[in-house]
Amino acid sequence: MNTPSAVTHVRVVAVRPDRHVELPERLATEEPLEIRVEGPGQHPEPVSVTMRTPGHDFELAAGFLTSEGVAGPGAIRAVGYCDAVEDPAARFNTVTVSLAHRFDDGAARRNLLRTSACGVCGTVSIDQLEVVCEPVGSRPAVPAATISALPGRLRKGQRVFEQTGGLHAAGLFDGDGDLLVLREDVGRHNAVDKVIGHRVLAPGGAEPAVLMVSGRVGFEIVQKAAVAGIGVLAAVSAPSSLAVSAAARLGVCVAGFVRGDRFNIYSHPERIGL
Amino acid sequence: MNTPSAVTHVRVVAVRPDRHVELPERLATEEPLEIRVEGPGQHPEPVSVTMRTPGHDFELAAGFLTSEGVAGPGAIRAVGYCDAVEDPAARFNTVTVSLAHRFDDGAARRNLLRTSACGVCGTVSIDQLEVVCEPVGSRPAVPAATISALPGRLRKGQRVFEQTGGLHAAGLFDGDGDLLVLREDVGRHNAVDKVIGHRVLAPGGAEPAVLMVSGRVGFEIVQKAAVAGIGVLAAVSAPSSLAVSAAARLGVCVAGFVRGDRFNIYSHPERIGL
Repeated sequence: MNTPSAVTHVRVVAVRPDRHVELPERLATEEPLEIRVEGPGQHPEPVSVTMRTPGHDFELAAGFLTSEGVAGPGAIRAVGYCDAVEDPAARFNTVTVSLAHRFDDGAARRNLLRTSACGVCGTVSIDQLEVVCEPVGSRPAVPAATISALPGRLRKGQRVFEQTGGLHAAGLFDGDGDLLVLREDVGRHNAVDKVIGHRVLAPGGAEPAVLMVSGRVGFEIVQKAAVAGIGVLAAVSAPSSLAVSAAARLGVCVAGFVRGDRFNIYSHPERIGL
Repeated sequence: MNTPSAVTHVRVVAVRPDRHVELPERLATEEPLEIRVEGPGQHPEPVSVTMRTPGHDFELAAGFLTSEGVAGPGAIRAVGYCDAVEDPAARFNTVTVSLAHRFDDGAARRNLLRTSACGVCGTVSIDQLEVVCEPVGSRPAVPAATISALPGRLRKGQRVFEQTGGLHAAGLFDGDGDLLVLREDVGRHNAVDKVIGHRVLAPGGAEPAVLMVSGRVGFEIVQKAAVAGIGVLAAVSAPSSLAVSAAARLGVCVAGFVRGDRFNIYSHPERIGL
């Protein structure tokens, strides 16, 4: 049995001026993914369900757990689809992450279960976040011209978007603006978790300097960038107020409305070479 | 003290060709909202935290609880900001919904806490949803020309988007395409919950025929439309695969890529007059 495709084929009624016809159409696939965590000698415990586009599911799970402060680099021993799931159709919708350490009742676990329960963190958790996440340290400034080149490079790699027009994308770039990894997903947070998870599961290579996202920037995207130690977060669209205030505290430069040779810097402008 | 504004004023470094200047800029406000529920003689219990744009918070809470099957029309006795919150800055970030009935340990409460914990529902919950949500019944067909007119009418009402470029919008329209209520939010699900909550808190008037959203359509948006009994869901952008399969089962017509005089119908085309 194959893993589900990121693209689903359907037939639609295409309404056009003065006529309507039935046509084949392609949709971005959306399926639930349950993430389970286990430590040595422990039973897998479900910690989250997210609606995602199938593909790079192990990266998604690894990136999610990293963003939530449960698993850092080197803490993940194995990731696999769950053999114990009885429904074969659901088999690829459950991923188990095996940690090198026990998944205990400590702060990280409580934090995970709470943020998962909330869906979000809020101002209280901004304070709590700083316990597990130091502000991003000194990094070489990224030239403004490099930032301006990123939307085109991101768009070129959006294969599923090309087909469906229905996905978010996130890309990690090095300081020269070269693409390190790009992922697409119906969920904007999932796309970011996948690129961060890619780094966790395959460490090494060039250091990521910029995280670029296709849409808007909310608080949670800033949190994920900060935990991953990425100094510049660039977006095609606007950040929210809480994204900007969190970025200012966590040492992340937010560059928004990156379009053509123009963009706005909302925090830490010293990270951009002007 | 006033409720927080939907728009936050900041200063940005605007990078333009060959120069950069500091300018005032407006951002969509993002703040956490904790929703608490109480029945007669019960203490308020937190059931969800969502990152939202302040404004119409009572509608957001009422619409969320309606979408989750906890509160239907007539079940909400009162909605208010929480006087018991000690931090004055956080006062407007906590809303308590007082139900006419006890918030008990029944299926609705378990369902709410589970979907809240998951953030989503998944295929299992599609089955469970049909327990609390009958497929949408027969409705008069909405003319195709009416659907084509909606994006322009939605856009005209997006006041905060005009200022910030950073919000989702949802609008309820009657069968003639007249706007009943429009709400904006940094969260696409919140914008939908607000328009549904508006109907719950101020029932009467024309029957809503179409829910129009500014972005994409995922599974959860279809679920909210179905619970609210709305037969047509229109969107400027694409639906996901699970949105379409859920809509087919729940009697909701999904019209996507509504642009100019063209759009695609993904489910229940009999609800559109062609």
